[in-house]
Amino acid sequence: MNQQKLTERIRAQRSYLCVGLDTDPLLLPAHLKNKPDGVIEFNKAIIDSTLPYCVGYKINTAFYEAMGARGWEWMEETVRYIPEGYFKIADAKRGDIGNTSTQYARAFFENMNFDAITVSPYMGADSVRPFLEFKDKYTIVLALTSNCGAADFELQPSGDELLYERVLRTVSSWGTTDQLMFVTGATRPEAFQRIRTIVPDHFLLVPGVGFQGGSLAEVSRHGINAQVGLLVNASRAVLYASSDENFAMAAAEIAHQYQFEMSGYLD
Amino acid sequence: MNQQKLTERIRAQRSYLCVGLDTDPLLLPAHLKNKPDGVIEFNKAIIDSTLPYCVGYKINTAFYEAMGARGWEWMEETVRYIPEGYFKIADAKRGDIGNTSTQYARAFFENMNFDAITVSPYMGADSVRPFLEFKDKYTIVLALTSNCGAADFELQPSGDELLYERVLRTVSSWGTTDQLMFVTGATRPEAFQRIRTIVPDHFLLVPGVGFQGGSLAEVSRHGINAQVGLLVNASRAVLYASSDENFAMAAAEIAHQYQFEMSGYLD
Repeated sequence: MNQQKLTERIRAQRSYLCVGLDTDPLLLPAHLKNKPDGVIEFNKAIIDSTLPYCVGYKINTAFYEAMGARGWEWMEETVRYIPEGYFKIADAKRGDIGNTSTQYARAFFENMNFDAITVSPYMGADSVRPFLEFKDKYTIVLALTSNCGAADFELQPSGDELLYERVLRTVSSWGTTDQLMFVTGATRPEAFQRIRTIVPDHFLLVPGVGFQGGSLAEVSRHGINAQVGLLVNASRAVLYASSDENFAMAAAEIAHQYQFEMSGYLD
Repeated sequence: MNQQKLTERIRAQRSYLCVGLDTDPLLLPAHLKNKPDGVIEFNKAIIDSTLPYCVGYKINTAFYEAMGARGWEWMEETVRYIPEGYFKIADAKRGDIGNTSTQYARAFFENMNFDAITVSPYMGADSVRPFLEFKDKYTIVLALTSNCGAADFELQPSGDELLYERVLRTVSSWGTTDQLMFVTGATRPEAFQRIRTIVPDHFLLVPGVGFQGGSLAEVSRHGINAQVGLLVNASRAVLYASSDENFAMAAAEIAHQYQFEMSGYLD
């Protein structure tokens, strides 16, 4: 999927919500907790119920890896289940020397048909470039993350700028707005104006709304550009809106609230 | 495994070699290429033949992920096959917000019984700390990597030092030498003196010898400390020493050469 198609989808759906499938078997509703396929049943119900309100799904690979080979199969099955036209993100935060990054790209872009993968910039250009070689796929590079640890390195000076600013400026020269996005956390809305001066045209993947306390209004005010340019992710707030049998309906309600609010910001 | 035990193992084995199992199904010897279990048969033969010459194995998770759920099973089976007492590293380069890093730690430390995992520092303390909570396990943080992309961020100024120096200085304050190691590439031996002034007592995991061109002599001269403090990894140079049926013997010969050279530096 390229930028134009993603923008069209967002305008049609009147939503830039991405639902994060950080599915933790310990947090499943009671009636699914001891079912052998509880995880996949849960994911399918969440996907079915939130489809009208979002444009994509973000799968947090850690949660599936923690379940072993079977978890990997559930991840594959979940990606296959997401309907055509929805933007599918592997939140994997990978990145390694060239021949290894190519293996990661194959795993997520070819074998599983994700549209995008999150990547750490630390190791530099040759750790990111192998992902860019896959056509119609997005590489989403960490810039300013939503956690408090962002203060340790991302927000430290790097020459006459901050490290995350250097990352935005440097990495954005490695590919086009059809190849690259950046992760910028909702917990630092004050940084969005600065971010938009460095990467005015790129899409930003924004975690940290909901459970982590970021403001959708603030992020939208400073982050939206002519192509919309935002994908805002909510994971726990949607997945665990209810722990009863009605969890999917509760998830849909939360997703609908986000979509309704986003619809206003899109005007 | 803690630092004292690892040092004892190295002195007993007269080797600080770690064999990297970056097993690529396309590079298997012809007689294994089309076998359904060729990858695991290859790994077992490499492990069997190199045991006398190394102290550990490093599994590059990307290569197994690229083979899907079955690859994940082969990774699990490979880790189980490595005998007790050998240091088992998941070269996974993970790192995410706290609750996600905990999931990664469970996947590699609990489910698969790795002794160590490589982690990216970019997201800061709360992305690394969840790994440190697992007893008798090592978190190996990327500092100065062996690839040319290290110049993009790791070698850029960060205040009055370089970013990788800040990473060494900051991260080493988060845990003990029984909890933390650092990745420092063999392709930059000139940096090892500086590295040893910042982290004199930590173990360093050193990739980049062999195929990537780093010098074992240089790394050893500047890197060895009172606890030895080095694990030098070789992957492709060992794995693909021969593409014939005698691949395991050829791998053993290369590993033996490394061990012989290391034995000299240990005196």
